[in-house]
Amino acid sequence: MVKARAYGHSLRAALAGLGQTDGFALLDLDDARWLRSQGWDKPILLLEGLFNEDDLNSVIELKCDLVVHCEEQLRWLERQNHPITVFLKLNSGMNRLGFSPDQYRLAYHRLHSAGHRVNHMTHFANADRVDREPSVGSQMECFTQTVEGLKGETSLANSAAVLWHRNALGDWVRPGIMLHGISPTGVYRDIEHAHLKAVMTLTSKIISVQDLKAGDAVGYGSRYRAPKAMRIGIIACGYADGYPRHASDGTPLWVYGPNDKSHGVLCPIAGQVSMDMLTIDLSNAPWATVGSTVELWGKNLAVDDVAGHAQTIGYELVCAIAPRVPVEII
Amino acid sequence: MVKARAYGHSLRAALAGLGQTDGFALLDLDDARWLRSQGWDKPILLLEGLFNEDDLNSVIELKCDLVVHCEEQLRWLERQNHPITVFLKLNSGMNRLGFSPDQYRLAYHRLHSAGHRVNHMTHFANADRVDREPSVGSQMECFTQTVEGLKGETSLANSAAVLWHRNALGDWVRPGIMLHGISPTGVYRDIEHAHLKAVMTLTSKIISVQDLKAGDAVGYGSRYRAPKAMRIGIIACGYADGYPRHASDGTPLWVYGPNDKSHGVLCPIAGQVSMDMLTIDLSNAPWATVGSTVELWGKNLAVDDVAGHAQTIGYELVCAIAPRVPVEII
Repeated sequence: MVKARAYGHSLRAALAGLGQTDGFALLDLDDARWLRSQGWDKPILLLEGLFNEDDLNSVIELKCDLVVHCEEQLRWLERQNHPITVFLKLNSGMNRLGFSPDQYRLAYHRLHSAGHRVNHMTHFANADRVDREPSVGSQMECFTQTVEGLKGETSLANSAAVLWHRNALGDWVRPGIMLHGISPTGVYRDIEHAHLKAVMTLTSKIISVQDLKAGDAVGYGSRYRAPKAMRIGIIACGYADGYPRHASDGTPLWVYGPNDKSHGVLCPIAGQVSMDMLTIDLSNAPWATVGSTVELWGKNLAVDDVAGHAQTIGYELVCAIAPRVPVEII
Repeated sequence: MVKARAYGHSLRAALAGLGQTDGFALLDLDDARWLRSQGWDKPILLLEGLFNEDDLNSVIELKCDLVVHCEEQLRWLERQNHPITVFLKLNSGMNRLGFSPDQYRLAYHRLHSAGHRVNHMTHFANADRVDREPSVGSQMECFTQTVEGLKGETSLANSAAVLWHRNALGDWVRPGIMLHGISPTGVYRDIEHAHLKAVMTLTSKIISVQDLKAGDAVGYGSRYRAPKAMRIGIIACGYADGYPRHASDGTPLWVYGPNDKSHGVLCPIAGQVSMDMLTIDLSNAPWATVGSTVELWGKNLAVDDVAGHAQTIGYELVCAIAPRVPVEII
């Protein structure tokens, strides 16, 4: 799964790093076109299928496979003679995309009659937790009963199911966020045992240092107030770069050591994140000064840990990286 | 102020809509270069000044004015013969960028001696509220005392000060978010009286409809559970497009009327916002179906109101619009 510019990592990086995969899946025809332009000749699946009928010619030209999740898409394919590989989507309880169990088999036969190769697909709502219905078990049961006796390959598992529901994989797995070393639960500890490592490192620099007296306030709304004399570092990264404005005081950043980038310390955010800047308490890093490098997240600091301080999950943070942030693929 | 791609609206749109201004201010040299390439010949101020000394040649070539907020930038300009118009930044209590009051006058004289034209600037921490220190009044007092007797023009007011502190404007005002019809407080009601109108409208379409039974759950984590039989609309817009994942159940969207785009109804979000989709309760819009247009925010629904349901402010939402969202300038 490399939708949303490979979860913010760029499609170019995904192709370089994941080129051994059996297939890529994404949303936009433009991205499919780019992959073909790079010589990629294995399958590409469009995960939300066609958004309008006119795109069918491009789909055929680019040899894309299609998810079919609704009646309109089904009708477009019935009017199409060129055989297409389809993943027909069953709504087994997620209630987002897909045919209901009582519509599914008819949809299958209509696509099959129109000459298309039909595979089966569903999506889990709660593969990352055990306390909610519909469970993976109940969605699996719904899926198995619905597709019983129908030909075609199956695709079931998102990252969470790949990690924690090994009986729910099907023929084609759909790992996404885990490929980038980020936890589907939003808690890095949950994937630490799987030895998945962070792919993205976001760094910036200190552009100013302020010496505060006890009682001085920092930034908009004066949210942080210095309990003692201290140094505040101003980092050139804010919510317009994609850093979460929700990050509370105490959200960690990693400040590299004075001479050795393999060492460093955590320093907490102090004050509301601004549009183009954020401010940290430098008490733990007396060597830090204008020009010092800081890691917002990456190999020394899990994006999941930052996300937790902003009441969200790593997915949102990596996807939100703004176009103005320079990217280097290593 | 047109930093962060004019708060997500694009610099092209800003130039088209705001070309009568006396000057633009932004962060990136590339944006300054683009403005010059479009024939813009009035002032451009780089709001965080130079990030490194090597950029000075480009600054001179592009005739940019510079904020100077720290000792390093000051030294770079002392080594530079070509006279530059500078806004010297005073830290009057925001504790982000700028020289402290006891460093300020020396910095002024050093720049002046080096042949630069020096103006004065500071930034308010609490212009949008009355219950926090430092207040606009105390920052004004600090500024006035510090620059007393020094030549140069002054720049003080951000959007909030322009709206609510008419005695704190100075020679150059710095309106930003208000130019786009968004409230600096995050509460649209606060600017309604000022007759500022939303500039950005974000729309998408319904790509699927699900018929739910009472008790059915929607989306990841099954956060929303249907209290009765109902229709759910699935919208092609998620957090990878820049819509806030924090949006709670009940966050409004505007669904256009069946025949007339000047009418419509609010429908609430039902279920966790996904990466590429979000789900709404269609009870208020029985006509809505696959292909119906919805407004995420814009002229019918203030972005501030959406932001309030996501515990943030409109600034963050408009800045977060992802590159994959098609933009039309009207």
